[in-house]
Amino acid sequence: MTTNRMEAFSDGVIAIIITIMVLELKVPHEATVSALRPVAPVFLSYLLSFVFLGIYWSNHHHMLQVCEHVDGRVLWANLHLLFWLSLTPFVTAWLGENNFTALPAALYGLVLLFAAIAYYILARALVRLHGSDSLIAIALGKDFKGKISIVIYLLAIPLSFIRSWLACALYVMVAVMWLIPDRRIEKTIVH
Amino acid sequence: MTTNRMEAFSDGVIAIIITIMVLELKVPHEATVSALRPVAPVFLSYLLSFVFLGIYWSNHHHMLQVCEHVDGRVLWANLHLLFWLSLTPFVTAWLGENNFTALPAALYGLVLLFAAIAYYILARALVRLHGSDSLIAIALGKDFKGKISIVIYLLAIPLSFIRSWLACALYVMVAVMWLIPDRRIEKTIVH
Amino acid sequence: MTTNRMEAFSDGVIAIIITIMVLELKVPHEATVSALRPVAPVFLSYLLSFVFLGIYWSNHHHMLQVCEHVDGRVLWANLHLLFWLSLTPFVTAWLGENNFTALPAALYGLVLLFAAIAYYILARALVRLHGSDSLIAIALGKDFKGKISIVIYLLAIPLSFIRSWLACALYVMVAVMWLIPDRRIEKTIVH
Amino acid sequence: MTTNRMEAFSDGVIAIIITIMVLELKVPHEATVSALRPVAPVFLSYLLSFVFLGIYWSNHHHMLQVCEHVDGRVLWANLHLLFWLSLTPFVTAWLGENNFTALPAALYGLVLLFAAIAYYILARALVRLHGSDSLIAIALGKDFKGKISIVIYLLAIPLSFIRSWLACALYVMVAVMWLIPDRRIEKTIVH
Repeated sequence: MTTNRMEAFSDGVIAIIITIMVLELKVPHEATVSALRPVAPVFLSYLLSFVFLGIYWSNHHHMLQVCEHVDGRVLWANLHLLFWLSLTPFVTAWLGENNFTALPAALYGLVLLFAAIAYYILARALVRLHGSDSLIAIALGKDFKGKISIVIYLLAIPLSFIRSWLACALYVMVAVMWLIPDRRIEKTIVH
Repeated sequence: MTTNRMEAFSDGVIAIIITIMVLELKVPHEATVSALRPVAPVFLSYLLSFVFLGIYWSNHHHMLQVCEHVDGRVLWANLHLLFWLSLTPFVTAWLGENNFTALPAALYGLVLLFAAIAYYILARALVRLHGSDSLIAIALGKDFKGKISIVIYLLAIPLSFIRSWLACALYVMVAVMWLIPDRRIEKTIVH
Repeated sequence: MTTNRMEAFSDGVIAIIITIMVLELKVPHEATVSALRPVAPVFLSYLLSFVFLGIYWSNHHHMLQVCEHVDGRVLWANLHLLFWLSLTPFVTAWLGENNFTALPAALYGLVLLFAAIAYYILARALVRLHGSDSLIAIALGKDFKGKISIVIYLLAIPLSFIRSWLACALYVMVAVMWLIPDRRIEKTIVH
Repeated sequence: MTTNRMEAFSDGVIAIIITIMVLELKVPHEATVSALRPVAPVFLSYLLSFVFLGIYWSNHHHMLQVCEHVDGRVLWANLHLLFWLSLTPFVTAWLGENNFTALPAALYGLVLLFAAIAYYILARALVRLHGSDSLIAIALGKDFKGKISIVIYLLAIPLSFIRSWLACALYVMVAVMWLIPDRRIEKTIVH
C-alpha cells in the first residue's frame, strides 16, 4: 500500500478542520468596534489552533515523505490522530468564548495531549513497519520535541485550574518550539 | 477510466462528512462541567460515527486498490454510497441529542443499513466490471462481514423500539467486528 | 497547463457543496415522528440537489478525461460554473423549507439554468482550446442534452408561479434524463 | 520536497473557504421577495469574495507550475497566506450584513491587504529558494500588479471611513485588474 491516499485523506481532513474553525467566529450584527470586541478572544484561540494544525500538517507531511508504504495499523493510527485533531474546533471555540478560563483551558490542553500521543503512536507504527534502520526511524530519532510537548501538556492541564493564562502561555510555548522547522528529517534526506 | 478521480472525490466527501459532524457538538456558553454535560452523549454518537466512517474509508481504500478501472455504473454506485454516508451527521446529531432513544436509534440503524447495502452494490458493480476471476472478486470472496452486518442492522432497527440501548450496542458490535482489519484483500495482493 | 489541479480543485468544491447541504437538514429537538416531519421536504430537495451535483461531477469527470490541457480562459469558465453550483445549498434549503412553493421553485430553476449555461460555456472553451477536430469536440457533438436542459429550465421558471409542483417535476425530468450515462464520450474513447 | 502536497492542501483549504462562505447566506423563512431582500447585499459581498479567492487560487496555480520544489520556509509562507484567506468568510459576512458600511469595509480591506502581503512573502520565498535566474523569478518579474494592489488597499482602508462605497469600488477595481489573466507566467513558459 502506498502512502498517497492516506496523505490525501489526511490533507483533506486537516484542511477542513482548519477552515471550519473560522465558522466559530460569530459575525456580529452591528458594524461597531464594541460589537467586534467579543470576537477578539475567539480570534486569538483560532490563531493558536491554526498554528497547531499547521504544525501537525507540516510534520505529517515531513514524516510521510520518508515513508514508502503503510498498512492497516498505520491507517488506523492516522485516523486516531485525525479524531483528536477534529475536536480542535470545539475546544478552540469554548476556550475563546470563555476568555481562556480554567476548565476550557484544561480541556484544550487535554485534546492537545491526546493528539500528541496519537502522533507518537503513528510515528511508532511507521517505524515498526519500516524497520529500526529505516530512514523514518533515523529521521525521528529520539523524538525529543514530541516527548517534551507531552510533558508540558501534562503540566499545563492541572495548572489551568490555578493560573489558566499560564497554561495557555505553555501551549503557545509548545507551538513556538515546533515552529522551528523539523530539520532532523530534512537532514536525513540530504545525507 | 482510471480509479484516481473517483477515489479523490470519495476521499473528499468522506473527509468532509467526518469533519462537519463535529459542528454538531454545540459549544456551551458557560465554562462549567454542568454546561459540558449535555455534550457528552453527542460526543459518544460522534465517536461511533467517526469509527464507522473510518471503516468505510479504510475498506473503500482497500477495495479500490485491487481495481484497475471504473465505468459509469460504478461512479453512480459510489455516489449512491456517498449519499447514505452524507446523512450520517444528521442521524448522529439526532441520536446524541436525544440520549440514544428509540426513534433516533432506529433511524441511525436505517442509514447504516442503506450505507451497507450501497457498499454491497458498489462491490458487485466492481466485480461485474472486472470479471469473476479478477483480483477484486477473489479479494471480496463471500463477503461474510458485509452480509452479517446487514443482518445485524435488520435486527437492531426493530429492537430500537424495545430496548434502544441494545440496538446501539449492536451497532458498536458491528463497528468492532470491522475494526479487525480486512486481511482478505491484503492476503490476495501478497499471493 | 495540465488538467490535474483544475480537476482536483473542482472535485474539492463539488464534494464540499454536496456535503454542506446536509447541514440544512436541521436536527429536530424531540425524538418523535412529528418532529421529524418538517425535515421531509428539505430531505427531498436535498436528494434532488445531490443527484444534480452528482451529474455535474460525473459529466465534468467525463469531459475532462478527453482533454489534454487547460488555459486561463478554461480556469475561469470552470470557476464560473463552480460559482453557480455553490449557490445550490442556499436554493435547496429555501425550496425545501417552503414546501416547493412558487418563488423558491423559480429561484432553484434559475440557479440550475445559470449552472447549465456555465457548463455550456466551459465545454465551448475546451473545444476552442483543443480544436474542432479534437476528441472533446467530437465527444460533445451537438450537445443535445445540454441544450434541451436549458430549454426545460426556461419553461419551468415561469411555470413555477402557476404550478410550482409542475416546475419541480420538470427539474426531476432533467435529472432523470442525465442519469442515463453520457455514452457519447465513452464511445468516442473506444473508437 | 515536491510541490504536490502543498498544492493539494492549498486547493483543499481554498475550496472549503470558497464554499463555506455560502453558509453565511442565511436562508429566509418565508417564500417572498421581501424575505429575500436582506440576502442581496450578502450575495454581492459573496460574489466579490468568490472572485478574490478564484484569483488567489488561479495565481497560486500559475506560480507553483514554474516551481520545482518547496522547503519549510515556503510551507509556512503558504500557511500564512491561507490564514488570511481563511478570514474571508468572516469579513465577507460582516460586510454584507451591514450593507458595505465603514468599519466592515475597512476590515475587509485589511484582510485583503494582509493576504496580498502574505502572497508577496510566499512569492519571495519561492524566488529565494529557486534563485534569481530561475523561471519563477523571471515569471514574477517586478510584480507590478501585486505592488499596486497593496497600494490601493492602503488607500481604501482609511477611505472606508469617509466614503465606504468608494473603498468597495476600489476593491472591485483590484479584482477586475487581476481578472485579466497573468500572461507573464504563461509567456515565460512558452519562451
